[in-house]
Amino acid sequence: MTKHILSIDQFTRKDIEKLFKRAEHFKAIVEKDGGTDLLKGHVSANLFYEPSTRTSSSFAAAMYRLGGNVIPINDVQYSSVSKGETLEDTVRTLEQYADVIVLRHPDVGAAKRAAGVASVPIINAGDGVGEHPTQALLDLFTIFEEQGRVDGLSVAMLGDLKNGRTVHSLAKLLALYDVELLAVAPNELAFPPEYGKVKTYESLDKVIDKADVLYVTRVQKERFASLEEYEKVQGSYIIDGDVANKMKKSASIMHPLPRVGEIHFDVDANPRAAYFRQMRNGLYVRMALLEQVQAN
Amino acid sequence: MTKHILSIDQFTRKDIEKLFKRAEHFKAIVEKDGGTDLLKGHVSANLFYEPSTRTSSSFAAAMYRLGGNVIPINDVQYSSVSKGETLEDTVRTLEQYADVIVLRHPDVGAAKRAAGVASVPIINAGDGVGEHPTQALLDLFTIFEEQGRVDGLSVAMLGDLKNGRTVHSLAKLLALYDVELLAVAPNELAFPPEYGKVKTYESLDKVIDKADVLYVTRVQKERFASLEEYEKVQGSYIIDGDVANKMKKSASIMHPLPRVGEIHFDVDANPRAAYFRQMRNGLYVRMALLEQVQAN
Amino acid sequence: MTKHILSIDQFTRKDIEKLFKRAEHFKAIVEKDGGTDLLKGHVSANLFYEPSTRTSSSFAAAMYRLGGNVIPINDVQYSSVSKGETLEDTVRTLEQYADVIVLRHPDVGAAKRAAGVASVPIINAGDGVGEHPTQALLDLFTIFEEQGRVDGLSVAMLGDLKNGRTVHSLAKLLALYDVELLAVAPNELAFPPEYGKVKTYESLDKVIDKADVLYVTRVQKERFASLEEYEKVQGSYIIDGDVANKMKKSASIMHPLPRVGEIHFDVDANPRAAYFRQMRNGLYVRMALLEQVQAN
Repeated sequence: MTKHILSIDQFTRKDIEKLFKRAEHFKAIVEKDGGTDLLKGHVSANLFYEPSTRTSSSFAAAMYRLGGNVIPINDVQYSSVSKGETLEDTVRTLEQYADVIVLRHPDVGAAKRAAGVASVPIINAGDGVGEHPTQALLDLFTIFEEQGRVDGLSVAMLGDLKNGRTVHSLAKLLALYDVELLAVAPNELAFPPEYGKVKTYESLDKVIDKADVLYVTRVQKERFASLEEYEKVQGSYIIDGDVANKMKKSASIMHPLPRVGEIHFDVDANPRAAYFRQMRNGLYVRMALLEQVQAN
Repeated sequence: MTKHILSIDQFTRKDIEKLFKRAEHFKAIVEKDGGTDLLKGHVSANLFYEPSTRTSSSFAAAMYRLGGNVIPINDVQYSSVSKGETLEDTVRTLEQYADVIVLRHPDVGAAKRAAGVASVPIINAGDGVGEHPTQALLDLFTIFEEQGRVDGLSVAMLGDLKNGRTVHSLAKLLALYDVELLAVAPNELAFPPEYGKVKTYESLDKVIDKADVLYVTRVQKERFASLEEYEKVQGSYIIDGDVANKMKKSASIMHPLPRVGEIHFDVDANPRAAYFRQMRNGLYVRMALLEQVQAN
Repeated sequence: MTKHILSIDQFTRKDIEKLFKRAEHFKAIVEKDGGTDLLKGHVSANLFYEPSTRTSSSFAAAMYRLGGNVIPINDVQYSSVSKGETLEDTVRTLEQYADVIVLRHPDVGAAKRAAGVASVPIINAGDGVGEHPTQALLDLFTIFEEQGRVDGLSVAMLGDLKNGRTVHSLAKLLALYDVELLAVAPNELAFPPEYGKVKTYESLDKVIDKADVLYVTRVQKERFASLEEYEKVQGSYIIDGDVANKMKKSASIMHPLPRVGEIHFDVDANPRAAYFRQMRNGLYVRMALLEQVQAN
């Protein structure tokens, strides 16, 4: 059976442990040699129906550092591939050229549809408001790397917890562990119960000195009923140097990036600031995932 | 003399035999190892003045699987290269960086113009309504692979045979062989006699059980004088599972893709459906062509 | 300390000599083998906030021919990277994936800002009307290659010497040598004295038989007060075969390209025409610069 990466639901704790061991292995290799020849001769088609330079760059670097190569397809809307062609046909065409397809698509379920016809592995790099499993895995890996463990941690999530695909997926993964999940969000943007058991707070003050991990997300103006409502809460969801320093010494501040004001630049030099290391971890986790679906 | 791939007219039967032997060689290599290092150190500039993700992806994969690298230039209209610069100057610039230029251009004769000034090989990847020689060669290679031979076959072409560059080029290549060419098209879209000797039919029924190969192309609404004329014929040029099963057991159904309704999805699992293998063959034929123009 | 390439001001004569020796080394390697494995395992992020196919292709080829790989980011304006994200954050993200960032940006000082936060080397590939140091270095290298020396030469610059970033940077580099700088430009577009000591002429006739090097730039209509003013001078700044032949036998005609009429096509076959070799030299100089910032 072809191995696809479609959803975090397909991962057990054991799968994750195995994956993270390989991610750490690749971290050591990249730091020492830049890369390896493990996937020499392999070609990835990075099929992005919507732009995501961050994710596509990360997957490209992962493939290069494994010795493979990448066909970047970034402009699908305007390209001949999409000229009336179904996603299924595009996938069946690209699998003639490539050994793996990394798919970003605006429609929920696109990756699953692609996997339904593909004879090469599909890696879901985000399907609309659906899933973005590699993001959730790199987030979890970052917690593991920063804190040395996952069990027994308090993880606070901050911001728009209603609409954020990222926090929902992370919460689902954390449910595999013995984690205290703390949610800090305005009522309008509260964490939906179906994604896991959380303690809910409206103010950051209540959790700031308890959290081992603070996962910050953006609060978008458009999500509020009125500008007044937005302005009432907005300030309380911004992390600056003072707020950061109220956290445990060992705490980690994470953010999926890009940030637009949620975390001040004066936090960047704080040892708690983990968000750029988080990006780096994305490289290692994606190398491990590519290995997993490509290795014989 | 620099070796260019500009037109199918430059190929004799012997050239084609030699080329197909190499394509089969590369097929074996790709299936076994993914690729080779034959063109290690070589760089291709894929200069696409109009988008064609399918063709550019195929050439990119071919170069990668030969051990070479690719500079993808997909947005020439908007790029600084084209800012008032002639095609000739762009080519003379890119040949400073690359060992071969794969050129797609909307103007007939563009590849020949490029070859007129280039000191590296030019591969014509389509010049408007002119030629697309690598497509014709991969089509012929597919017939050869699917049927085991070309001489003695009945090849039926279906759809818009008046405007299709693809079928014209294939017909010219098939004229090098002992092939019975059958054309099925509405009167308005009949096969032009200058591209080869064909037997013409208006209905698919007449040829469906005779053809060894059925080459399907799209019938575009815009080509008809009226919508009524279009609707009158349209249905008779669509291949579904029932139509496919009326064909010889050993028959092959081909299509240059993308398809937009001409072949139903229920044909895809039919062993006669050769159109995705046809894409795959494009990879091998382009590897052989790149080797031919790059080998010392 | 991280090594960046931000400005020509950071180069001494000795630095340049060392760099050009490596450029010549890479020229020999490329001509013999196509490339080397010196930067195997290295990944460059080519971050272009404005399109420049010529420069990005040159850097891509340089990286490939050193055995490295390239993440091309050509569409930053429209991409998620730029969605409200600062240049600094984008740089700190990409350095997680790449070993070097080649940056093209419309704002003066952008490369310096990037270098201020980056832990990997930044190479300035043009920051607005600021600097484009790799262009100036390849220009100087071309003079060295064509003439066998720099000291003692007469270098004439022609065209719009007021607005041309290219000629200003080259003039600054030439000031490190014993060079006679001749400027031929209409009064409106005269060479600004702050970039070096030049002798100024309004007519090319005065310098045509004296110059060892003629560096031609474009005279843009938009720069003139009136169309009449433009038409008055325009003809006198065009190099055709006759003008070229008035030059010394050993003279070199250079142009940063693209040209739009400033140099006639009938000059191309003239041995003095160095502008395509100049492009080629860009490859070698950029290989030497990439080595310089990446070698351990």
